[in-house]
Amino acid sequence: MTEMTPEALQHFFETEFPQAAADFRIEGHDGLDFVLRLPVTERHLRPGGTVSGPTIFGLADVAIYLAILSRIGPVALAVTTGASIDFLRKPEPGRDLLARVRILKLGRALAVADALVFSDGRDEPVARASMTYSIPPSR
Amino acid sequence: MTEMTPEALQHFFETEFPQAAADFRIEGHDGLDFVLRLPVTERHLRPGGTVSGPTIFGLADVAIYLAILSRIGPVALAVTTGASIDFLRKPEPGRDLLARVRILKLGRALAVADALVFSDGRDEPVARASMTYSIPPSR
Amino acid sequence: MTEMTPEALQHFFETEFPQAAADFRIEGHDGLDFVLRLPVTERHLRPGGTVSGPTIFGLADVAIYLAILSRIGPVALAVTTGASIDFLRKPEPGRDLLARVRILKLGRALAVADALVFSDGRDEPVARASMTYSIPPSR
Amino acid sequence: MTEMTPEALQHFFETEFPQAAADFRIEGHDGLDFVLRLPVTERHLRPGGTVSGPTIFGLADVAIYLAILSRIGPVALAVTTGASIDFLRKPEPGRDLLARVRILKLGRALAVADALVFSDGRDEPVARASMTYSIPPSR
Repeated sequence: MTEMTPEALQHFFETEFPQAAADFRIEGHDGLDFVLRLPVTERHLRPGGTVSGPTIFGLADVAIYLAILSRIGPVALAVTTGASIDFLRKPEPGRDLLARVRILKLGRALAVADALVFSDGRDEPVARASMTYSIPPSR
Repeated sequence: MTEMTPEALQHFFETEFPQAAADFRIEGHDGLDFVLRLPVTERHLRPGGTVSGPTIFGLADVAIYLAILSRIGPVALAVTTGASIDFLRKPEPGRDLLARVRILKLGRALAVADALVFSDGRDEPVARASMTYSIPPSR
Repeated sequence: MTEMTPEALQHFFETEFPQAAADFRIEGHDGLDFVLRLPVTERHLRPGGTVSGPTIFGLADVAIYLAILSRIGPVALAVTTGASIDFLRKPEPGRDLLARVRILKLGRALAVADALVFSDGRDEPVARASMTYSIPPSR
Repeated sequence: MTEMTPEALQHFFETEFPQAAADFRIEGHDGLDFVLRLPVTERHLRPGGTVSGPTIFGLADVAIYLAILSRIGPVALAVTTGASIDFLRKPEPGRDLLARVRILKLGRALAVADALVFSDGRDEPVARASMTYSIPPSR
């Protein structure tokens, strides 16, 4: 395992996932947690002005993926094998979304982490997600 | 509760969720299961030619939502409260994805269903998802 | 991988998990599904006469474990890595519980299956559960 | 909603769930988290000396249930509607298990919380669980 610097992580993100890298912004580590920001724009919104469930799922998925890579190094082929998510409140209109990731396990074959998603500036979470990633043996 | 005809469901889908309605195609009921098709195009693909996790999650979410509405009538405000998903295999390149939905519970406050997602023409599922929807009391 | 005969599976169950083997009864394959029965007794009941959530979780866990072993052979060390469960209805008092298991993936490192749990003789499921098992590499 | 004193919660637990109350010990609030202890004894152990998955599930279920009741008052009929759990590491032999609960949502109809389970004295979690409870409207 090799930890990645914020610069190396950003570079990896832009090179391997250019589309996603245009959508999200790595905020880095806020104390214990890894934080990813989704600058919310018109195209993330559903009727009613709320961010869609799949968009929130995608934010948590990318955040947890990057948080794990920041700890184990650039393993482009790690894949999500399972996830669970609870949608807790509607995101507030006009605010970015932030995912705060907590690593729970970095094993040889599996990594597990969870994330809370917040409307920027609010204390009550919008969603909770946990994900399991399979790590290829070639590492 | 009022069951919806396929035509009424299609009309509701296009009117309330025009963006999603452009992405998916309602195949209707295949025996017991409700089936939704995702015609896979370039923009659903990740590097490597595979469909992304959040796209598969979105397919299952919309499929389960429509399957429930087809049974209880047009409740536009029903919201997903929880979901779990297992990613089982990579989707096959060049094939559409199909979600087959099984309704498990239609209660007054909660509806629960699960779905298997397949590459069109294949027998082994790409993903399994289950979702819970909260139904507004005004129904 | 080596499929196990019903006799070999029963013998493995009694030898490796004598406590559990005393609680459950292998019904075998009912068409596509593997079926495990929990003869409900006084000590499974919560106040109100209903079977407790952890007991239903345990039934699904053992059922899925045995269903996988019946397909890959006696791998005593396979461990559950993740699970999700939806409790749909109260079990009916005075009826056994049956778990019907559907195998979704038998990979080299991970196996995934889900189960529906029913009160014996009823059509509407009491619970839905899905579980992931890690399979030790020594296989 | 009425918060319960530790004494009131203990009394409710012993009166309504005497069996469970004999198994677990309420440790109360450790800063933000509600903590429940499982004094591990011989009968919780599987072959190999490890605590079984359903026992860990049961610990998380009871811990989250009590944590919610400590905030909303004695609602004996609140039921678990959904749960997801990740098993991260084997519990250490000879140590009690502790569940630390974090409340994520206390709504009118649904309450959501998650828990980390630890071997007493260890920093790395044994399991992560999240659960949703339905709260009866009569409240």
